[in-house]
Amino acid sequence: MAAREAALDALVPRLLAGEPQAVARAISLAEDGGAAQRELIGRVYGKTGRARVVGVTGPPGAGKSTLVDRLARLVRARGETVGILAVDPTSPYTGGALLGDRIRMQKLYTDPGVFIRSMATRGTMGGLARATHDAVDVLDAAGFDWVLVETVGVGQDEVDVVRSVETVVVVTVPGLGDDIQALKAGLMEIADVFVLNKADRDGAERAEKDLRFMLHLAEDDGTGGGAAAWRPPIVRTVASRDEGVPQVLEEVERHRAWLAGSGELERRRQAHLRLRVEAILKERVLRAADQTLGVEREVERGFAARLDPYRVAERLFTGVLAGAPAEEPA
Amino acid sequence: MAAREAALDALVPRLLAGEPQAVARAISLAEDGGAAQRELIGRVYGKTGRARVVGVTGPPGAGKSTLVDRLARLVRARGETVGILAVDPTSPYTGGALLGDRIRMQKLYTDPGVFIRSMATRGTMGGLARATHDAVDVLDAAGFDWVLVETVGVGQDEVDVVRSVETVVVVTVPGLGDDIQALKAGLMEIADVFVLNKADRDGAERAEKDLRFMLHLAEDDGTGGGAAAWRPPIVRTVASRDEGVPQVLEEVERHRAWLAGSGELERRRQAHLRLRVEAILKERVLRAADQTLGVEREVERGFAARLDPYRVAERLFTGVLAGAPAEEPA
Repeated sequence: MAAREAALDALVPRLLAGEPQAVARAISLAEDGGAAQRELIGRVYGKTGRARVVGVTGPPGAGKSTLVDRLARLVRARGETVGILAVDPTSPYTGGALLGDRIRMQKLYTDPGVFIRSMATRGTMGGLARATHDAVDVLDAAGFDWVLVETVGVGQDEVDVVRSVETVVVVTVPGLGDDIQALKAGLMEIADVFVLNKADRDGAERAEKDLRFMLHLAEDDGTGGGAAAWRPPIVRTVASRDEGVPQVLEEVERHRAWLAGSGELERRRQAHLRLRVEAILKERVLRAADQTLGVEREVERGFAARLDPYRVAERLFTGVLAGAPAEEPA
Repeated sequence: MAAREAALDALVPRLLAGEPQAVARAISLAEDGGAAQRELIGRVYGKTGRARVVGVTGPPGAGKSTLVDRLARLVRARGETVGILAVDPTSPYTGGALLGDRIRMQKLYTDPGVFIRSMATRGTMGGLARATHDAVDVLDAAGFDWVLVETVGVGQDEVDVVRSVETVVVVTVPGLGDDIQALKAGLMEIADVFVLNKADRDGAERAEKDLRFMLHLAEDDGTGGGAAAWRPPIVRTVASRDEGVPQVLEEVERHRAWLAGSGELERRRQAHLRLRVEAILKERVLRAADQTLGVEREVERGFAARLDPYRVAERLFTGVLAGAPAEEPA
């Protein structure tokens, strides 16, 4: 434990100074989710809250990576720094990320003002969101002006990932199939800014009309009501030719101003804290169950006795209550 | 509590007799995730393990619903009954499901030997997988010969959903974009049977070749090695014209025979139990935290004091250890 303390004593100042190797090391700790990482977040948390944290999500094939790439160049051109987290929840088994994207981006960014990291699911359910939130903290504490979180937005886990950001940009394209339209509907409700990418394609008019109609429905049901409410704008882009990208950035900044002015920023941050706390608490109880009766042992026992899963879980929980060891200090 | 006991005393025999209203009611209980549901699963769990449970997953637009529809007709034609769970994790906010699919299927199935239910995310993270697993138990206990679980397979949550089945059918189509290819790669690792649907399209040859190549890679890395190992077959279908669907069913049955013969069936069932136990334990600790210090209260307090999420979670966990109330008997 003394070794861990010493390692963090060395790491934290380098991280806060924004040294790339220290940032990379700290994100690896965040992915590992061990005691060192919990202590690390405890140490740097007070330095967070300064970065602009933007999520970019949308169905597969919408051009999210390209948009993130162009947004990053745009803020770099203003002299601001940017950290990019490419979150890929599609391969929980190999931990593989969208390798093509990653390589493409790393070729582009030899710029020290840009830090890029792919994150893939590791460990238990909910682990990816937890690790991503911690990685955002790391980049924020390291002094990056912007943190862009890119994810394929489809399932609950990905929604949880983008929930940790201030502004959610949902990217879509004209001419997606019906299934994709349904996926998009799920994303409508978390969008702060819509981007209709590849807007030079056939069907852009129609796609924008459809989006406006869906937004209109959402407003009518009262969720978007009130004078101070934010109405998600729709921005047409051809990200691959940089068309419309400055307008996306403008809307992101307008949204941030609205967040700050309306009190919504604080409300969201508290909601994010709740999500993170819940995810951490869930991981905590699993660790405690492993350290007491042992999850595998009880599952084996329950399986042999044909116990239902609720009964096995309750036994483990009772075991945790009876004898959970204290966590290593964090 | 006496009222709940009495309600279950009435419900359980009707459920075990396969009455559709009782099945529907029991699945609603499973979705609610309350004390009645925990007790229900406890009562019917001993009657499970008889149904053939098959998951059908794949990227959006692959034609999963059509394949499920045709598989259901096929087993019905043999006189066997089938329960279908259409899991839609795309809209955690409205709880909306793929309405179009649902309506289409309900029009087709006025057949009492078919039970169809859409399930959408409710409540907390991990809740959808938990509810789906319980719903599979309900259908199994109700005596359905087959349970087909259809889900858009993309994120961790959806992978957790299909992990509860015996045989995973991954559906893909020729000519998907790059992003979709990456999604598919994530599904490769959980596939027991591959279906290349819409095989009358251009690019079917190429798509099958790509699939074979990816499978070959997976075998070479040792994960598929050994004489007794299962090699996922690739079946070409045009589900909308019923072409190839009997071959899919044949491969599903061949896979089941392999599972039973190799001992893998028991291994998988124990692994499924573990997943379910972990999900239940996580929900359990959140309930206990709410009943002791209160999650919302501690989050508000922590937010005001700028505590990091690990500290807030640890406070809640300590509170649970100090004073968790006993669960209502289940």
